[in-house]
Amino acid sequence: MNRIAALSQLIRDTEADALLLSSEIGVTYATASTALEGKCMITKEGAAYFITDGRYIERAQQFLTPQGFAVSVRQSGSSESESLLQLLQSQQISAVLFEDHVISLRQYETWKQSLEPIRLLPLGNRLAQLRACKAQEEIDAILHAQRIAEHALEALLPSLQAGITEREAAAKLDYLMALGGSEMPSFQTILLFGAHASMPHGVPENHSLKDGDVILVDFGAVYHGYHSDMTRTFAYGAVSDRIRSGYEAVLHAQEAAMEQARAGLPCRIMHEAAVNALKTAGWDTYFTHALGHSVGLEIHEFPSAAPNVEHPLQNGMIMTVEPGIYLPGEFGIRIEDMIVIQGDTPRNLTAFPKQFRTIGNHNA
Amino acid sequence: MNRIAALSQLIRDTEADALLLSSEIGVTYATASTALEGKCMITKEGAAYFITDGRYIERAQQFLTPQGFAVSVRQSGSSESESLLQLLQSQQISAVLFEDHVISLRQYETWKQSLEPIRLLPLGNRLAQLRACKAQEEIDAILHAQRIAEHALEALLPSLQAGITEREAAAKLDYLMALGGSEMPSFQTILLFGAHASMPHGVPENHSLKDGDVILVDFGAVYHGYHSDMTRTFAYGAVSDRIRSGYEAVLHAQEAAMEQARAGLPCRIMHEAAVNALKTAGWDTYFTHALGHSVGLEIHEFPSAAPNVEHPLQNGMIMTVEPGIYLPGEFGIRIEDMIVIQGDTPRNLTAFPKQFRTIGNHNA
Repeated sequence: MNRIAALSQLIRDTEADALLLSSEIGVTYATASTALEGKCMITKEGAAYFITDGRYIERAQQFLTPQGFAVSVRQSGSSESESLLQLLQSQQISAVLFEDHVISLRQYETWKQSLEPIRLLPLGNRLAQLRACKAQEEIDAILHAQRIAEHALEALLPSLQAGITEREAAAKLDYLMALGGSEMPSFQTILLFGAHASMPHGVPENHSLKDGDVILVDFGAVYHGYHSDMTRTFAYGAVSDRIRSGYEAVLHAQEAAMEQARAGLPCRIMHEAAVNALKTAGWDTYFTHALGHSVGLEIHEFPSAAPNVEHPLQNGMIMTVEPGIYLPGEFGIRIEDMIVIQGDTPRNLTAFPKQFRTIGNHNA
Repeated sequence: MNRIAALSQLIRDTEADALLLSSEIGVTYATASTALEGKCMITKEGAAYFITDGRYIERAQQFLTPQGFAVSVRQSGSSESESLLQLLQSQQISAVLFEDHVISLRQYETWKQSLEPIRLLPLGNRLAQLRACKAQEEIDAILHAQRIAEHALEALLPSLQAGITEREAAAKLDYLMALGGSEMPSFQTILLFGAHASMPHGVPENHSLKDGDVILVDFGAVYHGYHSDMTRTFAYGAVSDRIRSGYEAVLHAQEAAMEQARAGLPCRIMHEAAVNALKTAGWDTYFTHALGHSVGLEIHEFPSAAPNVEHPLQNGMIMTVEPGIYLPGEFGIRIEDMIVIQGDTPRNLTAFPKQFRTIGNHNA
């Protein structure tokens, strides 16, 4: 089933006649195209419309017309709302779903006035739920992004030598991904050395790499709008036994979580499996965040693999599995793969090795 | 006057007791700090509070406590709204301004319920207006970002040789900016060759540079969260006389617009000056967008230099001045500087030369 068909099915499950998408992500999903600005309207019968302005018309006609979208340009002089109202009325729409999770209160109030008498109905979590189970083409795009990221990391490793700063290394990794075809970094690359790695959301600074440091790299590429996400932690030179034993505990926790990644189980089970494995090894108090999240057109999507999340894992969901331990002033370790839920045995999209690895001039 | 004082003054001009900032930009502005997640509350008396979670507490204490913020961590087990309500009530707040331009309808409805009996009042355009006139430290940050961008462009030029693709060139420019200290590209770098430059918002693709092409580069760096923005158009090898004459017309239009950049005049005057100059030269029908916009923590800020914008230019506003001409299938030319409004004579923050310039193995 293509996206327009899936969206029109979604509409038919409500009392609306149509769906209005205006956010960047909503438009990208419905049109399966990036770098467009405009508004999409889909009807419950499966008709699709796209209203844009002069800057994007060429691109819209090229990518959207072949998919069956009726593409139109907003008339200069008429407001966006007027064009929208005209379109909705021409299609006899009396109630339309809108992105209440994304649209600002201000925008909503503007529409409520200017689209009168059309009823605006909140979309709620319906689109997020639909997007949670990926189609094959979406999985392929994420896998492609992941391979770009892996090749870039492998190409970066020889540059990770004493004296390089976190910023220089992160800049080079981003550059290598861009040369490999990434549209942009999946998020601001986290590349941290030594004690700085104990900040789960640290930002690369001017710290220089030195013997005995861990190197924590959490990053991803974007392909056709789809994000990848991976974390690896390396040892630079001779690291402490404590780091080695922490590494093995995190890796074991990750494997334990993946064993529970089965369609039908609640998402929280994966998190609990990781916590239990870390508890057995005596490291659980240093694991301070949720195990993972879904990934797609956004880097964080619904659902999360976190405590209390009862939503079931479903076939086609892509989840990160990223346990970590953080010892302020000492080090941080995180290992993250992306998996696709499929029955009882997930498919791991991450091919980059994850056994304990020492880089630099020392050998493990 | 510091930011907290300016924000508390803003509150005193309304019937609210306090201001709640939860957007990334709102928080960055109030705290003068980047890479933090949390909620700020400022009272009309000038007290400042920051609620965050465990991931950001170390950074918040480091940067915010010295500025006088009371930093607290949301209790695990209590919801975000509960922590917020507790804080508001402990300070006897009965009405609070919130970011109605940014907060989603869903978030607003959640707060309306969970923060009862506190009244939520829309902030409207007040913060955007306050942020429009930059303080010296903000101008300095933007100037620093601009210098990073200029050095990167100058360093890129020798790489712009026949055969390089738009993507490779854009990736290298981004890399050079990152090495120079840019926190991220100001927006997705626009770097287009030849006929592709006729798309004002084109995305770099796999087109190769060839003799006779224009090279259009629209890009910027970010420093301390502040953005720069510049466009230059170069000739590669021997370009047509039509391109040369178009270039001179755009440059002349830009200068005409800058002459009208005077405090007290409506923003639209700058746009009109550019249109009139292009009309005299016979190129005005190819100028298809607004002349410019304000820049700061966001790449597009209030106000715009566009038709019908009656809002006056004010001292401290930073505006882009970016006329362009676009001939589909042929070429595009845009020249963009950033200026600070100061009385009758703006300060140009852009130092990169803009006379017609041929690069590659040919000479102009």
